[in-house]
Amino acid sequence: MAHVKHMKWWGWGEEGVHFEYANKPAFAPFVKHALDVDLRPRQRDTIDFATVNVPASRAENALLEALTAITGAEYLALDDELRIVHWAGKSVTELLLTRAGDFARVPDVVVYPGTEDEVAQVLRLAVERDFVVIPFGGGTSISRSLQPDPREERTIVSLDLGRMNQVLSIDETSGLATIQAGVLGPDMEEQLNARGWTLGHFPDSFTHSTLGGWAATRSSGMQSDKYGDIADIVRGLRVVRPGGTVVLRPLPSTSTGPSLREMIIGSEGRLGVITQLDVHVHRIAEHREVIAYMFPTWQQALVAMREIARSGVSTTFARVSDAHETAFSLSTQKAPATLKKKVTAKGQDLLWEVMRRRGWDTDAMCIAYVCFEGSKAEVQGGKKAVAGIVKKQGALVLGAGPGALYDQKKFDTPYLRDFLLEQNTIGDVSETAAPWSRLTTVHQAVYDAAQRAFESQGKTGWIMSHMSHSYHAGACLYFTFGYEIGEDPHGEYAAIKSAIQQAFIDAGGTLSHHHGVGLEHSPWMEQDVSPEGVQLMRSLFAAADPGGHFNPGKIVG
Amino acid sequence: MAHVKHMKWWGWGEEGVHFEYANKPAFAPFVKHALDVDLRPRQRDTIDFATVNVPASRAENALLEALTAITGAEYLALDDELRIVHWAGKSVTELLLTRAGDFARVPDVVVYPGTEDEVAQVLRLAVERDFVVIPFGGGTSISRSLQPDPREERTIVSLDLGRMNQVLSIDETSGLATIQAGVLGPDMEEQLNARGWTLGHFPDSFTHSTLGGWAATRSSGMQSDKYGDIADIVRGLRVVRPGGTVVLRPLPSTSTGPSLREMIIGSEGRLGVITQLDVHVHRIAEHREVIAYMFPTWQQALVAMREIARSGVSTTFARVSDAHETAFSLSTQKAPATLKKKVTAKGQDLLWEVMRRRGWDTDAMCIAYVCFEGSKAEVQGGKKAVAGIVKKQGALVLGAGPGALYDQKKFDTPYLRDFLLEQNTIGDVSETAAPWSRLTTVHQAVYDAAQRAFESQGKTGWIMSHMSHSYHAGACLYFTFGYEIGEDPHGEYAAIKSAIQQAFIDAGGTLSHHHGVGLEHSPWMEQDVSPEGVQLMRSLFAAADPGGHFNPGKIVG
Repeated sequence: MAHVKHMKWWGWGEEGVHFEYANKPAFAPFVKHALDVDLRPRQRDTIDFATVNVPASRAENALLEALTAITGAEYLALDDELRIVHWAGKSVTELLLTRAGDFARVPDVVVYPGTEDEVAQVLRLAVERDFVVIPFGGGTSISRSLQPDPREERTIVSLDLGRMNQVLSIDETSGLATIQAGVLGPDMEEQLNARGWTLGHFPDSFTHSTLGGWAATRSSGMQSDKYGDIADIVRGLRVVRPGGTVVLRPLPSTSTGPSLREMIIGSEGRLGVITQLDVHVHRIAEHREVIAYMFPTWQQALVAMREIARSGVSTTFARVSDAHETAFSLSTQKAPATLKKKVTAKGQDLLWEVMRRRGWDTDAMCIAYVCFEGSKAEVQGGKKAVAGIVKKQGALVLGAGPGALYDQKKFDTPYLRDFLLEQNTIGDVSETAAPWSRLTTVHQAVYDAAQRAFESQGKTGWIMSHMSHSYHAGACLYFTFGYEIGEDPHGEYAAIKSAIQQAFIDAGGTLSHHHGVGLEHSPWMEQDVSPEGVQLMRSLFAAADPGGHFNPGKIVG
Repeated sequence: MAHVKHMKWWGWGEEGVHFEYANKPAFAPFVKHALDVDLRPRQRDTIDFATVNVPASRAENALLEALTAITGAEYLALDDELRIVHWAGKSVTELLLTRAGDFARVPDVVVYPGTEDEVAQVLRLAVERDFVVIPFGGGTSISRSLQPDPREERTIVSLDLGRMNQVLSIDETSGLATIQAGVLGPDMEEQLNARGWTLGHFPDSFTHSTLGGWAATRSSGMQSDKYGDIADIVRGLRVVRPGGTVVLRPLPSTSTGPSLREMIIGSEGRLGVITQLDVHVHRIAEHREVIAYMFPTWQQALVAMREIARSGVSTTFARVSDAHETAFSLSTQKAPATLKKKVTAKGQDLLWEVMRRRGWDTDAMCIAYVCFEGSKAEVQGGKKAVAGIVKKQGALVLGAGPGALYDQKKFDTPYLRDFLLEQNTIGDVSETAAPWSRLTTVHQAVYDAAQRAFESQGKTGWIMSHMSHSYHAGACLYFTFGYEIGEDPHGEYAAIKSAIQQAFIDAGGTLSHHHGVGLEHSPWMEQDVSPEGVQLMRSLFAAADPGGHFNPGKIVG
């Protein structure tokens, strides 16, 4: 589809972009140490689409004609590659299935409506002709929020919002922008930046995900400490349903009963299709600095993060890696290629020396990054206040150098998963949020559970974590884990991923802080929001979509 | 009921507490000027309950026996006065009906469960025996969220949560407290304060409303700029439903689909009974100062308020009265009784002189109060930053004197309504929220609409307003209006209140920022959240409560 950019059908991001390790001398030894995997040179740059078999479209001609009458033939796609692009998100399970060409059920047709009215016509048709609609933003979901039920007998239509990609207006007095749901992160920021504004919402998926997708899956960006979760950012919505359009005007706050806004956010397509949003926008900050700090221990780091959150100091983000992730992070540093970088590397050696002299256990230390935005004075004030807090917890201030590095590579991580899959190795993520008082418990419980699961599967596994997204009452813990694939890729993955998810719940965390539910996390819904909570949610979905036409089976079955 | 405190049956607050005007020399002339009403000395201190006729309870013995089996006879009330205390909230419509003894339908019995299990038993019985349950907190609603449908044929049970009034635990690390829903504001703060904590939630109704009531009606306290709206404060909930209890654990943030937490907040009893909440608590601030400022115009004041909200300066509240409310505020000052107060009054005369010399139109000037909390340095820093902002808008800093006065009389206002009713005069409030760009439009539209409505009813009316509750994208406008009652109290009130509500919606505001919906604001729901939004909400209520047992008819009919 000429008008809409899509990711590669077989993995993350753009064709031709890959994770590289040749320039990261510590990476291969790290992988050997952590996963007992010997990295080989990259085998292939892409996967030939001709190698997979795609189930034929089941859409009947009459239905295709009716859809064509709505969008025009130009915006209807039946070809196999586009149907596979739309068949699922980028979870490990979906990537494994895609690479194996194991497509139980894929969308029969992709439609690209250009207007809200066209969306409405498609939804009305879905009820009339009894087909299924799965709304599609950028396709970055890692919670299986897009993958159709393999048993679905009805026609499946993937509704791609990609043509609805404009910033429609900015209310500069109120700091509100009205934006179409299908806009990709970078396209939206470009339109906002051109007028001096930003949304400030940067999830890891940013380059390939959409505003509507962020709202539909309850996203949170890495800068949520300043800019808020998507539920804070979105103030108004237009949501097309077969019976009409829910229009929630942009309001700072309101007491109009149960929050429809908060019902639609996170609804993953089950309550209709979000077409337009009113969102908080901010003037681009004059100055921005990311400062790095090194803590002697994880416990001290968490205390500092909590005290930063409570201090009233305005930070854009505050993130700390545990000892494992700190070690990993150092392993992905590039070899110093320039004189300036060699000097920095030299500085790093000196730093190591300082830490050794202080008696630190270098296997326990944790690197943290805190971002400050504002006027020069505000940034200076923030840095000073945070330095005071972290020093009380024994940290060293490393300064702005490593912070700048952090800012550069922030959207590259998802490519690592495809690289590892090529190496017959899983690298995946799972995240939670919990009250401050539970964070060390959750962290330890997840490490223990993962270790037991690795052992039960006969694996040398690796797990690491960082804390980010601070709130008054707690924060997010984000885990990355890896292991070499054995004979039962899906069974092994399910065992290990499930052990981590279960540890979240058992230790007082939630099934996900910002990846949504989909099919992937649905099994933990009853434990997270209670059986009666699931019952209430199920009642809502059943009442709102009695025919089960809109992304059925997601969140709660 | 010995165990639960109730307000007077005929009006606000405690028997024996009244609004006094003898010591406010400017008040009577102000009322004469504003409403053309000649205040008379207070006629009566109370209303004799014997003067009203209360419809007999329709509860059948078998049902009373079943309820008694749940709570014990001690916690079941059939007596007329308690049934009237529970029959409605304190809206003008309800006060007029109560004073006239015009009770179309009142609860047949009041139950006071002591445990969540007893609540659950009552709700299951409601479904089994087909009766209606209306949960009752403090009874302060002014949106008719409690008043039963006059046509209700089934038995009506008022379920009073007042015995469930304990702070159960405080997680000091996370800043979270677990508290029973039925606790009154002051009782809760006393328990929290004893351990050095505060909720920081102080709605005007604070002294007589409950935590569960605040959550059920989407309350916001006057200090929401710092402490958040109740939806921000509440992180976990227990909600009893006939089929089971929804348990939402305390989480800082989560992506578990549509927010059940935000569905239950504002649900006004229609989704079940909130029995317990996990809420943000804060250490009591070391220092607190309320500083007053005088602005030459409303427009300049609003610009300053917006700039304060955007500045990143931490304020506990920032509130500005328009010219009318400023004049009213000065009229309710007490006569200076002591030497110190005389000196202050003298200072005020001097201030007047300064303003006249600056060429201010003293009829246009607007008084603002901003509250700062924190360490001495934080309070000083905040005051300095705000002084810089307000001075750019031409304001004078009046200092801490009037601010201290503001802090003292903040919970007394509701008594004024009963005082005025005794004088055959209406004094009432209506509030909205809107984006910053719409605030002056909303303000003017409401003034115009009220003026037209006063004229259509042949009244000399008065309206005044303040802005409070700042957010990134907008703020709350709170209107107070008054007029002398004529021959058709309900018809006149409906015309005037409706004109104001309609002006909110037409000018881009919401039907209420924090008073909830009830029956009072229900007619504007379709215009506020759209017909399809109402449809979705109706679907939720119908699916969650198919028999219509739980506060039926509220929010959306």
